Order: sequence, then C-alpha cells, then structure tokens
Amino acid sequence: VGEAGQAVRVIVLGTGQMGSGIAALVLEKPGLALAGAFARRRERAGTDLGLALGRAGPLGLAIEADLARLLERVRPHVAIQATCSRLADAEPEIAACLARGVHVISIAEEMAWPAAASPERAARLDALARRHGAVAVGTGVNPGFVLDTLVVALTGVCAHVDSIRARRVNDLAPYGPTVLRSQGVGLAPEAFAAAVGAGTVVGHVGFRQSLAMVAAALGWELERVEEARRPIVSSVRRETAFACVEPGQVAGCLHTAVGFVAGRPAIKLEHPQQIRPEAEGIATGDEIEIRGRPHVRLAGSPEIPGGVATAALAVNLLPRVLAAAPGLRAMTDLPVPAAIMGGVRRA
Amino acid sequence: VGEAGQAVRVIVLGTGQMGSGIAALVLEKPGLALAGAFARRRERAGTDLGLALGRAGPLGLAIEADLARLLERVRPHVAIQATCSRLADAEPEIAACLARGVHVISIAEEMAWPAAASPERAARLDALARRHGAVAVGTGVNPGFVLDTLVVALTGVCAHVDSIRARRVNDLAPYGPTVLRSQGVGLAPEAFAAAVGAGTVVGHVGFRQSLAMVAAALGWELERVEEARRPIVSSVRRETAFACVEPGQVAGCLHTAVGFVAGRPAIKLEHPQQIRPEAEGIATGDEIEIRGRPHVRLAGSPEIPGGVATAALAVNLLPRVLAAAPGLRAMTDLPVPAAIMGGVRRA
Repeated sequence: VGEAGQAVRVIVLGTGQMGSGIAALVLEKPGLALAGAFARRRERAGTDLGLALGRAGPLGLAIEADLARLLERVRPHVAIQATCSRLADAEPEIAACLARGVHVISIAEEMAWPAAASPERAARLDALARRHGAVAVGTGVNPGFVLDTLVVALTGVCAHVDSIRARRVNDLAPYGPTVLRSQGVGLAPEAFAAAVGAGTVVGHVGFRQSLAMVAAALGWELERVEEARRPIVSSVRRETAFACVEPGQVAGCLHTAVGFVAGRPAIKLEHPQQIRPEAEGIATGDEIEIRGRPHVRLAGSPEIPGGVATAALAVNLLPRVLAAAPGLRAMTDLPVPAAIMGGVRRA
Repeated sequence: VGEAGQAVRVIVLGTGQMGSGIAALVLEKPGLALAGAFARRRERAGTDLGLALGRAGPLGLAIEADLARLLERVRPHVAIQATCSRLADAEPEIAACLARGVHVISIAEEMAWPAAASPERAARLDALARRHGAVAVGTGVNPGFVLDTLVVALTGVCAHVDSIRARRVNDLAPYGPTVLRSQGVGLAPEAFAAAVGAGTVVGHVGFRQSLAMVAAALGWELERVEEARRPIVSSVRRETAFACVEPGQVAGCLHTAVGFVAGRPAIKLEHPQQIRPEAEGIATGDEIEIRGRPHVRLAGSPEIPGGVATAALAVNLLPRVLAAAPGLRAMTDLPVPAAIMGGVRRA
C-alpha cells in the first residue's frame, strides 16, 4: 500500500464505457488516487465524476473538458487514455501529458505498436517522453495481449518457430449500434464488400499492431501484411438488444491478417466478430498455436472478455510504467502486468 | 545478427542432458558464440564439446572442470547454469561468475525465486551481482514459466483475483532411473509414504518458488504453504524403457502445493508426475484457471515438453538479461522472453 500522502495520482482521459470502467478500477486500488477525469465532450464538463460513474454519491471531482488545465491543476503522475482508437487522434492528448512529465497508458488500439500506423508519430512521442522523463505505452486485450503479448510469451519456450496462428472468437451481443455497424451486422451479403470498400465495415483495429509486435519480438522482418474481411452469413435467426439478423443476413465480420516473413505466411491472426455465435454452435474463445520446436497450443473458452480485461490491463500496467525507463514502450518491453491485489507504491 | 566480432560469448555450466541441449541451441543462434563448457565431473575435462554433444566433428572447445580458469580464459558475457537443482549447490558457481561481471541464467529450480529457499543466499547473490554490474536470473519450464510466469501474465487481465489453480500433467516415460526413483515409480503403495518421509521420493522441486513468485507479483502476502505427495497407483500395467509398473503399484507422484493468503487457500498448484498416464486415459497437459473478475481459463494438451522448453527459455532469456539492470532478477521482473529467430545484439 502506498505510504500516506504518497498515493499515485491518476487521471482518466475519456468518460465513456471504457474510461468509466478504468476510473472505477482506479478507485478500488489501494495506493492509487483518482485525481481527475477529462472528457472530449464539452457538455460533460462540470459533471461530478462519481455521478457520471453511477455511484451513489459525488466524488468531488468535476469532469474537465480542458486537458491542459486539468494537468496543471491536479499534476497527476499517470494519465490513462480511453478516448479513441487511432494514433493520429490519440497523439495530441498523449503529447500534452508527456510534455508535463506525466506517464501515459493508452488503450487506443494503434498505440499498442505506434510505428505500425506512423513511424514519424512514434518517433515524436518517444523523443518527447524521453525529454520529459515520462513513459508512454499502449495496452488492451486485443491488440495488446491475447494476439500478441501472450503469443510472444509462449514462443519463449520454443527453440525454433516455424509459424504462428492465433484466433479470438467473441460475441458482439453486448455492443451497441456503432460497433455492430462497424462489423456489418444486419447487412445483406451482397452489400458487405461495398461497405468494406467504403470503410463503414472496418473489422478489427489492431492486426497490424499485433503482427508488428510479434515479429519484432522474435526478430522476424515483417515483409507485408495481407488482410481479408469476409461476411459471416448466418443460417439462423440471431437477436440482441440492438440487432436482429435473419437467416441469410450478415451476423458479423471474419477479419484475418497474415504476416509474411521471408516470403512465407509466418503469422496468421483471425478475429471473427459476430453476434451470438453460439446460435450456430460456435464457441467463443482464444486460441494460440505455435508450430515449431516444440509445438505449443493453448486455448480457452469463452474468450477473455474484452471490456473488463482492457480496463484491468490499463490499471495493472501502472506499476510497470512507474518502474520503466523513459520513452515510448510496448507491452513486450515491460515485465508482464499482474493483477494488483496489494497496493501500488511509487518508485 | 550481432555485428562482426560482437557476438555474445556464452559458456554452459553442465554437460548433461540439459547442458548439452542448451549448448546445441547456443550454437544455432546467430549473434551467440559458444565460448566454452564447464563440467563438474573431472573425468569429462579435456573432451571436445562437439564430441560430447554427439556432433560429427569437434568444436575445438575442450570441456573444463575448473570454472575459475574457464572464466579467466574465455571471459564470457553470459553463463548458463545447468548443473543442479538446489540453491545451496548452485550458489558457488553463480558467485564465481558474478564476481567476474559475468551474467548468469540458471535452470536450477530453486533459482526461479531464490528467497524461497534462502533469503540470505538471495541477498548475497543480489549484492554481488549489483557490485559487479551483472544480472543473475533463474528460469525453466517449471518453475519459471507454466505454473508461475504464465499464471502472472494471465492475471494481468483481471480487475480482481479470488483464487488461482494451475495444473501440469506430464509423462515421465522419457526419463531414466534417477528421475523415476524420485517420483516413487514402481514402489508398492505401502512403501510410498515411507519413501517420502525418507526423502527418496521428492516429487516436484519448485512449488515454493512458483507460489512465492505469483504471490509477490500480485502483492499477496503468502502466509504458509501446504504440500502433499500422494502415490498415483496404477490400475493397469505401464511400461517404459526404464520401468515396468504392475497394476497396484505406484506409477508416479501426485504432488500438490497450496499457498495460503489471508487465511484462505489462494493458489493451488498440482503436478502429477507419472509414467504413461495415457494408459489410463489421462491426457498430459497444462492448465491455468483464475477465479476472479473475469474468470480466465487457458489450457493445452499435450503439456509443453519440459526438456526443450527449459533449454529454449534459458537461451531466449539472454537478450532480456543483457538489457536488464544489475542484480538478482526473477522472470516476472523482466519482459517475457521471445523465441530468438533473428540474431542477438549486445546492448
């Protein structure tokens, strides 16, 4: 447990579902002090964070829409970012924190391996972090853990790796209209390809990050990535609170990505995202298979649930960030995070 | 790949099955140079290591039985120790290396978490390593990976952990008489308890290390450990090259260890070791189950094979050791090792 007056001051950027989950978890952990919250939406400013989290009473922390002012006022040690997915979108907030020496843990998917989206932005963040003695790192269940960090860890037992296949099957039933639309749920199969072409069906954000992370850890040179997004056409009726898919309609997106090394498909990642896969007897789950010396296969069903796991990773990574050397880091640069069941102590 | 003349010079301590496997793997990896081998058995001194490894020709490296002389002569960067299991037995060789600024990666089981066997020896090694700018770390498939590092990594996705159960089921069929005797293979059930009492049946060496490692990573205070060694009595005939067990005889040892935290059995580890479990329809495998928020379960069958995995971990950990701050480290202090498929570069 942190010594009196020595609690680690944490702010959360983002007060949506993920930001709220992270804030609630920070409040739970001895040694961490939730010092403030930033929301991009100006209309949230001034609302008490406790009420925004649905707690019985106020926390005495007003949500801020001015990040610079929040940083100056509460002088946090760490900011956890849950405002966006893309690096270009995430960078200004991260830079604002780093420039004040505030460490950043981001769940923006592209922050899992920033150079995959933009080597320039990655280099800029790294230089800024070093200059101000701060650490920036991206994490999350995927990218950030199941299809990359855990894969890398399992290769640690291998004298040689021929190829890697990892697959994560989840259920989109808990998600709302925005997520469902991004996976093509409810479309006619004929409309799916056009929606992918138009960029309205996105599939998973993170394959390029995971592939780059795994390849870099093994010392493989990733030559190119082939991605495919195919419709998962349902043969039965599937229904959730937000969608109803009839037989013959699209229940989700089978997104795959293959990383080529030395001309061979060396890393294959699969992430079919659909509503109610169990309606057709498909179990959700995570599966990693490494072909090499030795072969290694590890699997679990159901899948590690994305929401709570991403929030947990962001908070559990905090002691690793406090102990790391300044700069832009990846999950594979740090000791693996562990569930924080004791307290957190500043270095 | 290491730059010309910049190869990392590695020596191997131990030329038994594990030491030989490690030496062969070091020879495979670009950027690593096998610089020598030490054997405790004086009769091995002078034998060419290539011949000892069963290679077609000599390597031009004579096995040394004088560790100090070997260290002075080849001035290695890293020594990989595969000579023993116990810390008391491992310490003098490790200390000899550290005192010359040579990093040590040890597969001695008790080196996975040295303080579990002796806080005094652990503190001494840590001080020595720091004084000479060197790193010492213990690894191996178990302890070192399956029942500890991998468990810790999986708790990283948890907002809360109630309890942990992990189980590793292996097959002793490949092992010789010494290992089989240590698990009670071939005994009458009535003789088993006495053999445990006399210390001839040992079970698994490493539970206390794994329990301490997991508890420390989570910030749990481990109050006490309860171990049990029970005979696995076969109901069928089981045969290997080194043993034949009749129905009613002991096929192996079911060794379990429970770590208590706040009065509760918080971590339960199970490692039944027997010959030919498949003869009774028991599959070998690794399984980790975390009860918490969320529940996490990951399993694989067959088990990650111990010999090759331990050799791989020892070698794959090398880049992490070269990058670590001086001192005595545990697997959970370092970024997870990855299979080395490129080269190794000195920091």
